[in-house]
Amino acid sequence: MQTLFHCPGTCSLASLIALEYAGADYTVHKVDLSRNEQRSADFLVLNPNGRVPALKSERGVITETPAILLYIAQSYPAAALAPLADPFALAQVQAFNSYICSTLHVAHAHRFRGSRWADDPAAIEAMQRKVPQSVGACFALIEAQLRPDAWVFGDQPGISDFYLFTVAQWLEGDGVDPAAYPKVIALRERVRALPAAQKALAV
Amino acid sequence: MQTLFHCPGTCSLASLIALEYAGADYTVHKVDLSRNEQRSADFLVLNPNGRVPALKSERGVITETPAILLYIAQSYPAAALAPLADPFALAQVQAFNSYICSTLHVAHAHRFRGSRWADDPAAIEAMQRKVPQSVGACFALIEAQLRPDAWVFGDQPGISDFYLFTVAQWLEGDGVDPAAYPKVIALRERVRALPAAQKALAV
Ligand SMILES: N[C@@H](CCC(=O)N[C@@H](CS)C(=O)NCC(=O)O)C(=O)O
Ligand SMILES: N[C@@H](CCC(=O)N[C@@H](CS)C(=O)NCC(=O)O)C(=O)O
Repeated sequence: MQTLFHCPGTCSLASLIALEYAGADYTVHKVDLSRNEQRSADFLVLNPNGRVPALKSERGVITETPAILLYIAQSYPAAALAPLADPFALAQVQAFNSYICSTLHVAHAHRFRGSRWADDPAAIEAMQRKVPQSVGACFALIEAQLRPDAWVFGDQPGISDFYLFTVAQWLEGDGVDPAAYPKVIALRERVRALPAAQKALAV
Repeated sequence: MQTLFHCPGTCSLASLIALEYAGADYTVHKVDLSRNEQRSADFLVLNPNGRVPALKSERGVITETPAILLYIAQSYPAAALAPLADPFALAQVQAFNSYICSTLHVAHAHRFRGSRWADDPAAIEAMQRKVPQSVGACFALIEAQLRPDAWVFGDQPGISDFYLFTVAQWLEGDGVDPAAYPKVIALRERVRALPAAQKALAV
């Protein structure tokens, strides 16, 4: 049995949808970020970085969304969540996910977590002001690479769809106009309609 | 034949060492960041994100260090650069690499690339001031998880070693005291001694 440490509304949603879609046997342990539970001594043993998601099983803990998503795809090959037999195609998926993780998600994080990178309150406000532009630029780059009326890769839902869906939840809150990214929004609706996404959103 | 788009001194060094260590057939195309060649029209066709590394082959372009490293490991299995047959062990490697990419490298980037996240010059200076602390915290977390006198994972050099070596080049420049991270520094020396690292550094 494995346990996903998850906080609704955060990036851990992507891993939750993947587990659910794959039909995995798992439980959810909610981590309340609003109460800083991710910094509790108990949680820091699991992930010294103090972040969700973390996936715990008998063998140990996996952190970092791109790593967890690939692990779920490899653990449940029947769900066809990634092109596991083709290293080049898999690299495209991992590159897409790594871009979300290292660039898009990081741009978004400057809205709430500016204190990671500066102490001065005026600097933290300056970061917040740029979020619509920096997050918008990331979505523009993704919009340009999406195919119309299709999943991100291949012809069925996969880990990149769940990850993009998750970060696309933040568009409006980040002050980015969704109308500028019609393919992203269509993808968001496609994933939202999946029973696995519905179930994950209801947690 | 494949081409690595590389700039000496940057994160693309990790991919270069991996290609070299694997005995891959490749050429290097240097991208001069000091002349902003990464924003040239030619380069943006390869990577619309305007960053190195990018690995181009007949099938297309792969971006993002963690994706390129996994691709090289999968393409040259004889080099044993990652635990490819064990999804859990591979997830540990990918989690380590994703942490470097999304957290450590990003903390470092606030020294030179603050304008990604704020426009105000005072805010950009405030970000620069926090780099020693934020980068130092990332290395402290890595230091705590390294084994003494060993590679990052397993018993031979792998993609995480090359990646950690690469970002550990930046310690002194980031104003972080290397003496606080003896296992990181020992690992840096171990990798530096490899012929593949020597050859990559000489490019
Ligand atoms: N690179 C990590 C980032 C994880 C992350 O930043 N998670 C956020 C929620 S979206 C978090 O736990 N933040 C808590 C904090 O910063 O204290 C990943 O992709 O999993
Ligand atoms: N997440 C990317 C980051 C790549 C990146 O930021 N590369 C830097 C060099 S270390 C770059 O090309 N910067 C050029 C710029 O920001 O204009 C990766 O891990 O490959």
